[in-house]
Amino acid sequence: MSPRPDPVLAADEAARALARSLWHNADTAALAFTDPATGAPMIARIGFGLAANGTGLTLVSDLAQHTRALRASARAALLIGEPGPKGDPLNSPRLSVAVAARFAATEDRATLRACWLARHPKARLYADFADFHFVRLDVIEAFLNGGFGRAHRIAAEDLQG
Amino acid sequence: MSPRPDPVLAADEAARALARSLWHNADTAALAFTDPATGAPMIARIGFGLAANGTGLTLVSDLAQHTRALRASARAALLIGEPGPKGDPLNSPRLSVAVAARFAATEDRATLRACWLARHPKARLYADFADFHFVRLDVIEAFLNGGFGRAHRIAAEDLQG
Repeated sequence: MSPRPDPVLAADEAARALARSLWHNADTAALAFTDPATGAPMIARIGFGLAANGTGLTLVSDLAQHTRALRASARAALLIGEPGPKGDPLNSPRLSVAVAARFAATEDRATLRACWLARHPKARLYADFADFHFVRLDVIEAFLNGGFGRAHRIAAEDLQG
Repeated sequence: MSPRPDPVLAADEAARALARSLWHNADTAALAFTDPATGAPMIARIGFGLAANGTGLTLVSDLAQHTRALRASARAALLIGEPGPKGDPLNSPRLSVAVAARFAATEDRATLRACWLARHPKARLYADFADFHFVRLDVIEAFLNGGFGRAHRIAAEDLQG
């Protein structure tokens, strides 16, 4: 049996532009993480934004299962890009992003808070609670899926910065 | 430090009904799986439906990263329920479902194909290709998140059947 060709294409300019647009405009994402109790994958919806340097950013509560999970294991993944109201949802472009989660240091909080509230103004109601934490999501690698046969590998530097 | 109370509530009748409605009406889901190359979580959007017995069902291609991953490790998770076009997406109800993936046997294919095409009629174009496979997604447990402070544990038998 001959090896199958890699079905994932290298990124071209159009793929990079679409990936950046998804990354820069999302305000929510699906987060895949490892459940520390079982070692199995688990998933949740999170609020999403960017830090000033273009890395992913989220604001999480100690009450959430994924907050405890990210403290135990920093590797996670984001799915970004919601299907539109019409058409085949599997033809709607989306970005799968392998990330490393990094809980923000106290001295970064004011800057990240400003970034976050610019996109999520209602978070003003709870962003300062002691059990809410900003978490940076540093991109490791990403895959843009634009529909059948349109999968492209996207480098971290093509999303961030 | 006293232990925190479990923030996840037991399901009531309204939570079970909402969870069943999400499970029965979704035609797409985010799938969290383990990348066999790294052991880290990864994520993709998949088509979603139900088998006749109420277990989750998807149709996957050998070209997809998640197909190879589910063959290597069957534990996965689904996020079901898209945010609406208006309002805070984190107040929109969604279901996080821990599942075990099971590639369907050849003798089940005709039955699963009929279930799938009833919900995904356009899949008629590729459902019979040799590199497409039906995969059952058996529910292990589920969590309904209806927004802040409204997280409920949902038993497998409350979704399936």
